[in-house]
Amino acid sequence: MCDRPTIQDIREAQERLKPHIKHTPLLRGEKMDEALGCQIYLKPENLQITGAFKIRGALNKSLSLPKGEIANGIIATSSGNHAQGLAYAARLLGVKALLVLPVTTPKIKIANTKALGAEVILFDGDTAARWKRVYEIAEENKYAVVHAFEDPMVMAGQGTIGCEILEDLEDVDTVIIPMGGGGLISGIATAIKAIKPSVRVIGVEPSLTPKYFQSRIHKERISLPLQNTIADGLRISVPGQNPYPIIEEYVDEIILVEDSYIIAGMQTLANDAKLVVEPAASIGIGALLAGHIKTRPDEKVCAVLTGGNWDLCELAEIYKPTHSPIPKASE
Amino acid sequence: MCDRPTIQDIREAQERLKPHIKHTPLLRGEKMDEALGCQIYLKPENLQITGAFKIRGALNKSLSLPKGEIANGIIATSSGNHAQGLAYAARLLGVKALLVLPVTTPKIKIANTKALGAEVILFDGDTAARWKRVYEIAEENKYAVVHAFEDPMVMAGQGTIGCEILEDLEDVDTVIIPMGGGGLISGIATAIKAIKPSVRVIGVEPSLTPKYFQSRIHKERISLPLQNTIADGLRISVPGQNPYPIIEEYVDEIILVEDSYIIAGMQTLANDAKLVVEPAASIGIGALLAGHIKTRPDEKVCAVLTGGNWDLCELAEIYKPTHSPIPKASE
Repeated sequence: MCDRPTIQDIREAQERLKPHIKHTPLLRGEKMDEALGCQIYLKPENLQITGAFKIRGALNKSLSLPKGEIANGIIATSSGNHAQGLAYAARLLGVKALLVLPVTTPKIKIANTKALGAEVILFDGDTAARWKRVYEIAEENKYAVVHAFEDPMVMAGQGTIGCEILEDLEDVDTVIIPMGGGGLISGIATAIKAIKPSVRVIGVEPSLTPKYFQSRIHKERISLPLQNTIADGLRISVPGQNPYPIIEEYVDEIILVEDSYIIAGMQTLANDAKLVVEPAASIGIGALLAGHIKTRPDEKVCAVLTGGNWDLCELAEIYKPTHSPIPKASE
Repeated sequence: MCDRPTIQDIREAQERLKPHIKHTPLLRGEKMDEALGCQIYLKPENLQITGAFKIRGALNKSLSLPKGEIANGIIATSSGNHAQGLAYAARLLGVKALLVLPVTTPKIKIANTKALGAEVILFDGDTAARWKRVYEIAEENKYAVVHAFEDPMVMAGQGTIGCEILEDLEDVDTVIIPMGGGGLISGIATAIKAIKPSVRVIGVEPSLTPKYFQSRIHKERISLPLQNTIADGLRISVPGQNPYPIIEEYVDEIILVEDSYIIAGMQTLANDAKLVVEPAASIGIGALLAGHIKTRPDEKVCAVLTGGNWDLCELAEIYKPTHSPIPKASE
């Protein structure tokens, strides 16, 4: 297999995952239409098993590895949702999972990962140092490494979301996808452009970490200093090596979103769609609220809500009236 | 038509409502299974148009009234969700809606009702006084009154939820339904006992307003002083006249739930099911958390989540860590 997934890989992932994960329902968010300037649909992966889409990629990769390779265990680093996905996959396969998480990981993601039976090591250091540690441990113990976004089988797993969207809403016009490492958007964009190339695929990332936005301008992968965006799941300093060329080929627009609109997105989704989402998941709605994406009122837009794993007490802070409604950027 | 709906009325309501409302997805809440002691399914009417199930009954009644009867407008009183349903129905039919709401109605329900184009009168007085005012205004202006729970066509509309649950989960064992006026549970119980009588139907009401519980003991409708339960949607002092005999015939158990468990239910649904629900909607999950309902671990239990209309700043209070986890009543 080469370093990018094919539509065939994604179709196979769909079959492989079918007995284990949810085909999340596509929800119509009519109450938000006016504020967002389109006919909005939501792909609520916060309702997925483990509360985030990451189970798709983690499980697709784990299920397709030879049994001998994973006998000693599987290992990865993650901002938290891939950890839960991998922990779930390991439990299903009856093998050990070891997750190396940043010390800043939200408590709920640590607790959920441990509750699935995985071992967790909290690591204080940057992404590169964390990965170095992961590969050291993997070599010492003969663990299989499952990368959160560089692995084509992981991307293929995430790509199944693209197939489901097109199955449930054949005439979708635009799909909006958050960009962290890039595994999710690479998978979904591969699926969508293979099945229905006319669909507009938009990537959204925090304006505090404009890694893909800057890389597109400079026509090469740009590494940026890590900034403390509220969207912990998207807090990555450099585009993924394998996702990058796929994104350059298939993603039509890359849009930056300020943290204040990410917060407004969380409030809007709670208020008008009755969904609890984490900051990384609300960024697409934030982009529309801000008026950063041009849409027609009759345009069918689907926003992928990536997950809902966020501490309740942090949610309380977000929902407090001190965060007053934010005016549109265009006003 | 007599004072109770038949299964035929409910089937007709399904056809009548189909073009206008959502068949809400039945969600599996596997993450809550252990805490709740069963295989839990959720019927999330918080994801319904107008954020609550009430649109079903309000619209079924409005659509089945002769055009002449509603030409001048429709009127009702409500704790807020029936108001939104009726406002939506009136807008669809192009007629005026006037809603007489208690002064204690949550702001979001008032705002949503007005946003749908309805006129709102805030009334300071008990339920009987409010209804008196409604009938006075109706007579003066020749408005059609749509009662929130006494009307068989309203009950038939709510009953469509029962049909949908059985369509989506044929082998459901138990269905848990909140009890306010009783229109919802009468409709659902009528549907379920007609289609699959072996399904256990459980009604839940706040322990602060044990109107149906006390009435069952005393074998007559008991009127209680109105207590300030957090579940505003269930704050009613006496069982509905028409729902009462239906409930006595079809509802297998009536369970009381303390406000602390209603709050714990809201927290659990946010944390583990990623859903925003209002207090009245979380009472079934609260009953299970408390251990008040006896279940087997392999029992398929469906909790009807009635709505999600609750002010964000109030949600923030509920999600704050000051509400610490509550021990099981049985511990």
